Amino acid sequence: MDHKGWVRKKLINFEKSLGFQHTPQSEIKRRMDKLRDGLKKIEIDAVLVIQKMDYYYLSGTTQDGLLFMPVEGKPLLMVRRELERARLESPLQDVVPIKSLRDLPSIIKNHWGKLPKVMGLELDMLPVNDYFRYQDLFPNIKFLDFSQLLRKIRAVKSPFEIELMRKAGNIGEKTYLKGREILKEGMTEIEFGGLLEAAAKTHGHEGLIRVRSFNYEAYTWHILSGWSGGIVSQSDSPMGGLGLSPAFPVGASLKPIRAHEPILVDFGTCYQGYQADETRMFSIGNMGEKFTSAYKACCEIHDMVLEEARPGTECDAIFNKTVKLAKKLGYSDSYLGPSGLQTHFVGHGVGLELNEFPFLAKGHFYPLEEGMTFAVEPKIVFPGEGAVGIENTVAVTGNGCKIITPLKQEIFQI
Amino acid sequence: MDHKGWVRKKLINFEKSLGFQHTPQSEIKRRMDKLRDGLKKIEIDAVLVIQKMDYYYLSGTTQDGLLFMPVEGKPLLMVRRELERARLESPLQDVVPIKSLRDLPSIIKNHWGKLPKVMGLELDMLPVNDYFRYQDLFPNIKFLDFSQLLRKIRAVKSPFEIELMRKAGNIGEKTYLKGREILKEGMTEIEFGGLLEAAAKTHGHEGLIRVRSFNYEAYTWHILSGWSGGIVSQSDSPMGGLGLSPAFPVGASLKPIRAHEPILVDFGTCYQGYQADETRMFSIGNMGEKFTSAYKACCEIHDMVLEEARPGTECDAIFNKTVKLAKKLGYSDSYLGPSGLQTHFVGHGVGLELNEFPFLAKGHFYPLEEGMTFAVEPKIVFPGEGAVGIENTVAVTGNGCKIITPLKQEIFQI
Repeated sequence: MDHKGWVRKKLINFEKSLGFQHTPQSEIKRRMDKLRDGLKKIEIDAVLVIQKMDYYYLSGTTQDGLLFMPVEGKPLLMVRRELERARLESPLQDVVPIKSLRDLPSIIKNHWGKLPKVMGLELDMLPVNDYFRYQDLFPNIKFLDFSQLLRKIRAVKSPFEIELMRKAGNIGEKTYLKGREILKEGMTEIEFGGLLEAAAKTHGHEGLIRVRSFNYEAYTWHILSGWSGGIVSQSDSPMGGLGLSPAFPVGASLKPIRAHEPILVDFGTCYQGYQADETRMFSIGNMGEKFTSAYKACCEIHDMVLEEARPGTECDAIFNKTVKLAKKLGYSDSYLGPSGLQTHFVGHGVGLELNEFPFLAKGHFYPLEEGMTFAVEPKIVFPGEGAVGIENTVAVTGNGCKIITPLKQEIFQI
Repeated sequence: MDHKGWVRKKLINFEKSLGFQHTPQSEIKRRMDKLRDGLKKIEIDAVLVIQKMDYYYLSGTTQDGLLFMPVEGKPLLMVRRELERARLESPLQDVVPIKSLRDLPSIIKNHWGKLPKVMGLELDMLPVNDYFRYQDLFPNIKFLDFSQLLRKIRAVKSPFEIELMRKAGNIGEKTYLKGREILKEGMTEIEFGGLLEAAAKTHGHEGLIRVRSFNYEAYTWHILSGWSGGIVSQSDSPMGGLGLSPAFPVGASLKPIRAHEPILVDFGTCYQGYQADETRMFSIGNMGEKFTSAYKACCEIHDMVLEEARPGTECDAIFNKTVKLAKKLGYSDSYLGPSGLQTHFVGHGVGLELNEFPFLAKGHFYPLEEGMTFAVEPKIVFPGEGAVGIENTVAVTGNGCKIITPLKQEIFQI
């Protein structure tokens, strides 16, 4: 049997039976229409979409390739590997093979009749040597960055996308509930994290939390217990935890989990590429008054953000209100990190990547819009002692917002 | 308690007690000396090291920052977050804070007395917008790519590095052996993979397999059973598997594992940043003559590579010999992928990243050197039916090579 024949005849049935969601053509069309409107305004004739999640967003496949999308005319998906799977997964009509990047100009010319004058590239992520290569291939084309435009379009989710995020949230709910059965005193943080992740995967969690960044990685489950929760690390996060080595200094460690410690579990689940991010506290026995009170303060801040979040509210203003409330509650020195190391965001957009727009953060002077999705995560950190927090992922509705991580909001005490 | 005081007084003890390996000063010095020799030849005065694994290799920390290393003079580590942990983990003497990239020229001038004329950057990975930023900050500096030079230096490992890889291999051994207890008929591929990963983590596996690439990701455990092993995907691999969705179309899927299927388990373990990569076959009952024979052919090819691998042997020549042997054994159409989709490598360098030099691949006309480490992975793929293979990570010695993944070479049949 040859691979092509097998993929064409059989794979579609297997994919369907195992829950693969193919992106509908109407969804891709809506996304491309929005992008075309934006490109017209900045006088870009066409874009070459290369970055994995942008490419997936606009094509419906992550098979290795490039997407050429002119403002006027039909898009062209050029696939290196594997062509038949790309044809199966993408609703785009023009899907062709590309063997070498050298062929790119001629393939585009054949398809579109000409080459663009101004072409958009994702300059926020594209490596310099690749850029030089495109300059060589297209000596008469001017390249402009369109990444910020597309990121802003991606920030506003369709009902189709929110539904996938809600399903990621359902996986999270099952996983956190299972955590209560898994957690035992003396277990290491990483052992607990590994078993939680295994549980999540049996429900379809995709195991990798994508981040749009050159150097920043999302690690495996953040299980921070007692003093490890009080440690800041490389990540732009209120606390990073100890991690496993200087090469992986973030997240769960080989520290054993003890009774009466605050155990902070923060991690996302991913379904069909879409993420939901949440945090819950666990404890073995009571975690003590200091942490319980701080946790309640986090919940109060979290609830205030949900009260405030609606179309038109400015992100910076929401962030500032949380800082004021934290101060009023007595946590000005420990809110969002230890004194001197505090971060300046209480929420971040979530979708195909963990750091999407909007950011509920200092200096982010733009309003929320209907369809935006973000994680809100107030945390309070005591160096040498521990951290507490709560986090849910929410979607902005017409007149407010709704939680799409349905897990009950309580301390999971065993 | 403040964070700085706690990190200074307590963290070093916790790190030691939990197995953190700090890179010795002698190791960093040896690496920098090699890099300086190479930089002199290409007339670069200094480098700015930004890419996470290069930065770790030369500084001993992955705390967020930049490393300035002049060819003549002392290196300077500039840390954004978190300074005290960087000071703890790096043996470098000059470790200073940097708040904003705007301060970079003045910090370098203060430290070195001047600015370089030609500065090396990692242009293979650095995003274009970051590059433009550095051009603005240093209008009179010429930038050159030094990434290939450093990658070649990193390809040759020290005994310290090989020892860490051997420990990663030990984690792999424990994990694969545990797999025999975990595997049950009817379990999905991803469930088996999740439980294997959880087992690996309890032994210190760091959960993320780093790849030096803009778009390519290493997924969670590749568990490919029966027909899913016969599917090619986006990855430059003989077979990619089904995966979980069009967004994650590689690796383990929700397909249930059945008796008498070939079950290919391919994944790396990571310890203190260093990886070991291996593959073993599992089966529930006998996997049948066709697959057993193909597996034996893989072992024969694997053993031949180990016979050939020694300092001075050319990588391309080794690859060609494996193609000839595969043909002789009757697998010319299924060796390294299905007909028409065959890949052109039988081995890849491993270390801090999964795609290091050397590549035992077509067109790689350079010799092996003592200290190089690579994974050798002959695979045979039958579309619609399944895949088999074997993989070990080896280190090139003075007159041959030695396996550093000690796991026994047999089919794990339950």
